[in-house]
Amino acid sequence: MKSHKVEPRTLTGFMELLPDKQILFNQMKETIQKSYEKFGFLPLNTPIVEIADVLLAKAGGETEKQIYRFNKGAHELALRFDLTVPLAKYVAAHYGQLSFPFKRYQIGKVYRGERPQKGRFREFYQCDIDIIGDTELNCLYDAELPNVIYSTFLELGFSNFKIHINNRKILNGLFSSLTLSEQASNIMRIIDKIAKIGEEKVIEELSELDIPNDSISTIMKFISISGDNNEIINSLNKIGINDSLFIEGITELENVINCVRSFGIPENNFVIDLTIARGLDYYTGTVYETFLDDYPDIGSVCSGGRYDNLAEYYTDKKLPGVGISIGLTRLFYKLNELNAINFDKKSISDVLVISDSDNIIPCLPIATALRNANINTEIYMENKKINAKFKYADKLSIPFVVVVGRNEIETNTVSLKNMNTREQVQVDISEAINIIKS
Amino acid sequence: MKSHKVEPRTLTGFMELLPDKQILFNQMKETIQKSYEKFGFLPLNTPIVEIADVLLAKAGGETEKQIYRFNKGAHELALRFDLTVPLAKYVAAHYGQLSFPFKRYQIGKVYRGERPQKGRFREFYQCDIDIIGDTELNCLYDAELPNVIYSTFLELGFSNFKIHINNRKILNGLFSSLTLSEQASNIMRIIDKIAKIGEEKVIEELSELDIPNDSISTIMKFISISGDNNEIINSLNKIGINDSLFIEGITELENVINCVRSFGIPENNFVIDLTIARGLDYYTGTVYETFLDDYPDIGSVCSGGRYDNLAEYYTDKKLPGVGISIGLTRLFYKLNELNAINFDKKSISDVLVISDSDNIIPCLPIATALRNANINTEIYMENKKINAKFKYADKLSIPFVVVVGRNEIETNTVSLKNMNTREQVQVDISEAINIIKS
Repeated sequence: MKSHKVEPRTLTGFMELLPDKQILFNQMKETIQKSYEKFGFLPLNTPIVEIADVLLAKAGGETEKQIYRFNKGAHELALRFDLTVPLAKYVAAHYGQLSFPFKRYQIGKVYRGERPQKGRFREFYQCDIDIIGDTELNCLYDAELPNVIYSTFLELGFSNFKIHINNRKILNGLFSSLTLSEQASNIMRIIDKIAKIGEEKVIEELSELDIPNDSISTIMKFISISGDNNEIINSLNKIGINDSLFIEGITELENVINCVRSFGIPENNFVIDLTIARGLDYYTGTVYETFLDDYPDIGSVCSGGRYDNLAEYYTDKKLPGVGISIGLTRLFYKLNELNAINFDKKSISDVLVISDSDNIIPCLPIATALRNANINTEIYMENKKINAKFKYADKLSIPFVVVVGRNEIETNTVSLKNMNTREQVQVDISEAINIIKS
Repeated sequence: MKSHKVEPRTLTGFMELLPDKQILFNQMKETIQKSYEKFGFLPLNTPIVEIADVLLAKAGGETEKQIYRFNKGAHELALRFDLTVPLAKYVAAHYGQLSFPFKRYQIGKVYRGERPQKGRFREFYQCDIDIIGDTELNCLYDAELPNVIYSTFLELGFSNFKIHINNRKILNGLFSSLTLSEQASNIMRIIDKIAKIGEEKVIEELSELDIPNDSISTIMKFISISGDNNEIINSLNKIGINDSLFIEGITELENVINCVRSFGIPENNFVIDLTIARGLDYYTGTVYETFLDDYPDIGSVCSGGRYDNLAEYYTDKKLPGVGISIGLTRLFYKLNELNAINFDKKSISDVLVISDSDNIIPCLPIATALRNANINTEIYMENKKINAKFKYADKLSIPFVVVVGRNEIETNTVSLKNMNTREQVQVDISEAINIIKS
């Protein structure tokens, strides 16, 4: 009887990797996790499914349209679309049982029903860290996050990257001093195009917004500030904008930059960038974006910033915080496409144990000895020709094969083949362990 | 303006842990992952959301009622309810790109809308491993899984546990030889109650099924087989049931037991148990269940077995396999309730760096030095009294505090306090690193 088969397909926008790529993905994920833990962030693992009205307390607009929501039992449910809202819910719900500043990381899948498009995912990993204060949070914590970013990307095998740092109070103070706060987002949009359209066209477009000429001239003076990090701070101090928010922003930025230096981050890995704004409504102080110098097309690989109040939709407690996020699924996809993932480890198994006959039993205690020495060990148990067994090791990129045959059993040895050099030696098991481990 | 607040609540049946418990949970999860990798299983990470008709190709009955399903875009979608169906889909879809035997692990969340009940979860982690053969799979692989179970529970800190092993062919052969195959599940249900209701009542209930007396007598003889593993095999060989499936089952069981011994698993960690059947329709050969001797009420903590054909709903290829699963969320919940999780690591940070004044800057390079030595390091940056800083370390169970003050800066040292012994020493940073690491 031949029955009807269902086509085994996977949804568009849902990443499903072959094992060799999954090994690389997991190494990236675990590297990020270890790096976050090195800075003392606590692990969280909130549910993927939440009550819709809890998850959507704040949402609206584009985000709300992308939500996966459905009914089951007594509730309307939704899949989380980021890790920030579940954090806000968590901190509000467990406030009394947490120690503040509360530093947590969460690495997990989130869901957004975006239009499917190459390199866009509907299920993707976010790797978030946040530091939440109770009522207040020292500005020095803002300097710790660039340190985490630096450390993490170094561990991921990159050294040419730049963390762009700004403070939203500087932009907000600038526009407020010019009584242009309401037009801030329009102005920022025009400024953003300067590399493309040039200075004159920017001035022209700003004039079209009925901005007075002296204000335009202040804006142009502001965005033309350049130089190294110290020179930028100097220019900001000398620009003559007498706004308390603006001055507060400069002070915070200077503090953050000084602390970043004290942490020992090289000067060429961070830069003050007065043009980055990041989510105009959400961030209120320090903001970050990170770019890989060798892969500018990827765009920012890690962004975030300081916000005034994490959980205002759930609690009256004031909970200021600062956080960053790495969009791992997209980053992995892009780096893989560019062949820019460079981990040494290509296989899970360090060694494959095979028999040169159909007698597998003598392989078993050998495998146990290797595993007890903390070596990831696989045994090939099918009755195949010896070449098929070696081919299996090759296909899985397993670096060593241990052959156990009659001769080896009699002499209490194993034959150890290095699959890269194709060299084979006959040694006792403890010597084999040493070679595999070195 | 005081706005309306949404109550920050989490769905019933969805585990959300406080950080101290999450640290323990993650250690269990990572221990299981490392153990699976030590046996060379490849990582998989399939989507949580799948096309409903793909996921439900085989489902029906109770399972189907528990599924979370919903519409979004062009498809009816569903949340996965186990990791076996996604594996079947994956192997069928990527057949040509995989190496067989295909050994994979997957650790991930699955969803079942069960009636909420203490210790029952609707979102829970399964930790699965399976070995899939192409057309056939050597019976020796059945012996590898008890080895993985043994290794994993040892790493989880248990030594008193028993892996119960049986072979479904023995049961199936027994019932077939008595022409009772159709009543097998009813008979098994009665036999299962023997500890509760006693031998006589079992015989009585079997009689009520119109089973002939000599068949009942064979069944009773069969279930009374006892002794050590060798004695059970001997009794089976001598019981005089002349059925080819029955005899094949005994041979396979004997092979598996011999291989398990060759792997070096202690005799008191595995036992032949002729009464375990596990999912009568699914498993076709070796079956396993695992019980913690000290916590019998938890029930089986790891089960699985051999099946004939993984992906028959998706492909004509015959894909026999053998697998096991640990239901981590329930296991963690039960062990935590019994206070039976014994990991040494209670904190993420190994050390908290604090200043004895409001000058935090000198702490920053100290923290970097500690992190560069691979020590998880946190800095307390709020301006609080020094007691509040020590209290923070205590609440998070951080084992060491490094104090940086004027005196330490002048002498290029740090004060290192062991939070368990309350001893404090003033040493240079390299000495502090040595003490923390040892």
